[in-house]
Amino acid sequence: MFRNFKMVSRIVFGQGSFQQLGDILQAPRSQSGSFMVFMVDDVFKSSPPGRKIPVDDGDMMLWVNVDKEPTTDYVDSLADEIRFFSPHPPAGIVGIGGGSTMDLAKAVSLMLTNTGSSATYQGWDLVGNPGIYHAGVPTLSGTGAEVSRTTVLCGPDRKLGINSDHTVFDQILLDPELIVDAPAQQRFYTGMDCYIHCVESLSGTFLNAFSKSYGEKALQLCRDVFITDGPNRSLETEEDLMMASYCGGMSIAYSQVGVCHALSYGLSFVLGIHHGVGNCIAFNVLDEYYPEGVREFRKMMDINQVQLPRHVAVELSTENLEKMTNVALVLEPLWENALGKNWKGIMTRDKIKELYQRM
Amino acid sequence: MFRNFKMVSRIVFGQGSFQQLGDILQAPRSQSGSFMVFMVDDVFKSSPPGRKIPVDDGDMMLWVNVDKEPTTDYVDSLADEIRFFSPHPPAGIVGIGGGSTMDLAKAVSLMLTNTGSSATYQGWDLVGNPGIYHAGVPTLSGTGAEVSRTTVLCGPDRKLGINSDHTVFDQILLDPELIVDAPAQQRFYTGMDCYIHCVESLSGTFLNAFSKSYGEKALQLCRDVFITDGPNRSLETEEDLMMASYCGGMSIAYSQVGVCHALSYGLSFVLGIHHGVGNCIAFNVLDEYYPEGVREFRKMMDINQVQLPRHVAVELSTENLEKMTNVALVLEPLWENALGKNWKGIMTRDKIKELYQRM
Repeated sequence: MFRNFKMVSRIVFGQGSFQQLGDILQAPRSQSGSFMVFMVDDVFKSSPPGRKIPVDDGDMMLWVNVDKEPTTDYVDSLADEIRFFSPHPPAGIVGIGGGSTMDLAKAVSLMLTNTGSSATYQGWDLVGNPGIYHAGVPTLSGTGAEVSRTTVLCGPDRKLGINSDHTVFDQILLDPELIVDAPAQQRFYTGMDCYIHCVESLSGTFLNAFSKSYGEKALQLCRDVFITDGPNRSLETEEDLMMASYCGGMSIAYSQVGVCHALSYGLSFVLGIHHGVGNCIAFNVLDEYYPEGVREFRKMMDINQVQLPRHVAVELSTENLEKMTNVALVLEPLWENALGKNWKGIMTRDKIKELYQRM
Repeated sequence: MFRNFKMVSRIVFGQGSFQQLGDILQAPRSQSGSFMVFMVDDVFKSSPPGRKIPVDDGDMMLWVNVDKEPTTDYVDSLADEIRFFSPHPPAGIVGIGGGSTMDLAKAVSLMLTNTGSSATYQGWDLVGNPGIYHAGVPTLSGTGAEVSRTTVLCGPDRKLGINSDHTVFDQILLDPELIVDAPAQQRFYTGMDCYIHCVESLSGTFLNAFSKSYGEKALQLCRDVFITDGPNRSLETEEDLMMASYCGGMSIAYSQVGVCHALSYGLSFVLGIHHGVGNCIAFNVLDEYYPEGVREFRKMMDINQVQLPRHVAVELSTENLEKMTNVALVLEPLWENALGKNWKGIMTRDKIKELYQRM
C-alpha cells in the first residue's frame, strides 16, 4: 500500500509575492462571508515581515509566541480565543512565521471543526473533519511545515504530530523577501532541519523514487546555500533555501526521518529545546549512523560560524533521562525507517541514554 | 504577479500502485452515487495495462483512439457519448494512457460541466465551471500531462491547449509497472518531450527558482535514463522516467516551453505528426537556439538507436507552409519565453519557414 499523498492545493512562489496575499484571500472570504484570522509570530510585532499584512475591518490579528515549542494547551487556548472573538467560524486562518507558527495555524484550523483537546488527535489519521481554510506563509525555511501533513505539538505525555490529510495547507505563499532578514543562527538551525531530514530519508529503508528525487534536490540546494554561498546571503540564496525546504518537505511523502529526529523530540519535550537546535545537537553525536552527513554538517557549521550549545544533557536527572528516552521510543516509524524492522534489537534504552549523555 | 499554481490534489506513486485504483475511486463514487468512466487508450484492448482495471457494474468503458492527435471534435463527441450512456453525470473520468489519452480525459471532464464546443475554450483561463472528478494514470512518461494545467487539442483553426486551473487532475496514479512495456521508440519520443521542455524552460526568460529546481531535477533524471541507462530498461529506470515527467511538468508552473514546442505545434496541426515525434524533428534543426541541448539530444538518439523521420516538410505546399507558420506564431508566450519581449524582430515568418523547410 502506497500513501495517496495529499498535496497543498495552491502555491505562489516569487520575490514580492506577499503583496498578492490580499487578492488570494478574496476567494475564501467571499465563500464564507466571514472574517480572516492572521496568526503571526509576535517577533514581528515591532518589525512587520516585509510588506503590509492585508488585514480587513473585522479581521482578527492573533499574535502568537513560539519562544517555546507549541503545545496542545496553547493550540486549545488559541482556538478558544477565536471562538470568543466571534460566534461565527472564521473564513480562514493565515499562519505567518516559522514552522512553529505554521504548525499552530494548521492545528487551530483543525480544532475549530473537531471537538475536544488537540492532544487527542496526536498520532496518525485521527482527525475526522476537515479544518477551516488555512494558509501558510513561511518567514523561516527548512522545516518543510509548509507542505507537510503534520503539525508537531508537545502534549501532556509526548511531543508528537497531528498527522492527517486534513492538516495540509490549502494555500502556501513562498516569498524569499520574507526570510531574507531572519537572524543568521536561527536561519542556520532551521535550514539544518531540512538538511538533516534529507540525510535521514535518503539513507532510510522507506525511500522510493518519488521521495528520492525530492530529497536529492533538497540536499543539493542545502549544499548550494550552506557550503557554496555560506554566510553570504541574497534574495537568490533565500530562494534556493525556500525551495530546499519545500523539496525536503515533499520528500517526506514516501519516506521518514530517522535517528536524529527521534532523539531531538526528546530534547524538545524535556528540555524545551527548539526543534532546529535540538536536531543539530543530536545530529552532532550520530557519526555512527550518518557518518558522511555528520561530517558535512560540521563543515556547514564551520563555514557559517555557528557554535552549537554543548553538554545540554550531561547533568540530567535519571527521571528526565527516562522521560526523554520514552518520548524518543514512541516514534516507531522513525526508528524502523532508520534501522529496519529489527530496530528494537539495535536501539536499546541504554543506547539511547548513552547518546543523550554525549549531547 | 506570480501565478497561484493549482496542484494536483492527490498523488500515488509506487510499483504496483495500480491495484489501489479501485480503493481510491471509492471516495468519488460514494460522493456522487454515480458510475465511473474509464477512458482507456485502445492499444490496451488486446493487452491490458498491467493489472485489471477496477470496472464496477454500471461503469462505462470508453476506448479512445489516439493514433492522431486529439481534436476538439473528438472531445465533443466523447462527451456526447457519455451523455448518451446515462442522463446522470458520471462520478468521474479516469484517463489511462499517454499524454493524449490523459488530455482527452481532462477535456471531456470539463465539457460535461461547461456548454458549447471544447474549441471555444482553447486559450488561457476561459473555462467557467470546474469539471467532474478526473484522475490520470499514465502508461507513457514524458509529456507532464499528469500535472499540467493544460489539455492540448487540435481545433478547427489551431493546435492550442485549454489552459485552466480546472483542467488539473484531482488524482494521479504513477505506477512504473504500467510504462515498463511501452514500445521503445514511442517511449523515447515521449521522454524527449520532457527533455526538450526542460532545455527550453531552463534557458527561457520566464524561469524562477521554483521552476528551475524542478527543471534541473527532470533534466538530470532524463540523463540518467537516456544516457546512463540507455536502452537497458528496468522498473527502476521507469521510476526515474516517471519522476522526470512529473518534475518536468511541475517545472512549467513558472516557466514556459520555447521555440521547439511552437514549431512542433505547426507540424502536428498540418501534418498530423504526433507531439513527441514532432518535438524531436523540430529540435534537431535548432542548434542555433539550444546548441548544447541539441548536441546532447543527438547523443541520446544514438545511444537509444532512434532513427528520426527526415525531410517531413520539404515538399510542403506554400499554403500548408503558411498554415504551419500561422499555428506556430499564435503561441506568443512560448516565443517571448525563448527570445524575450522583442521576439517578433527575431523570429520572422521567413525564419520560421526556413526552419520548417530544414526539417
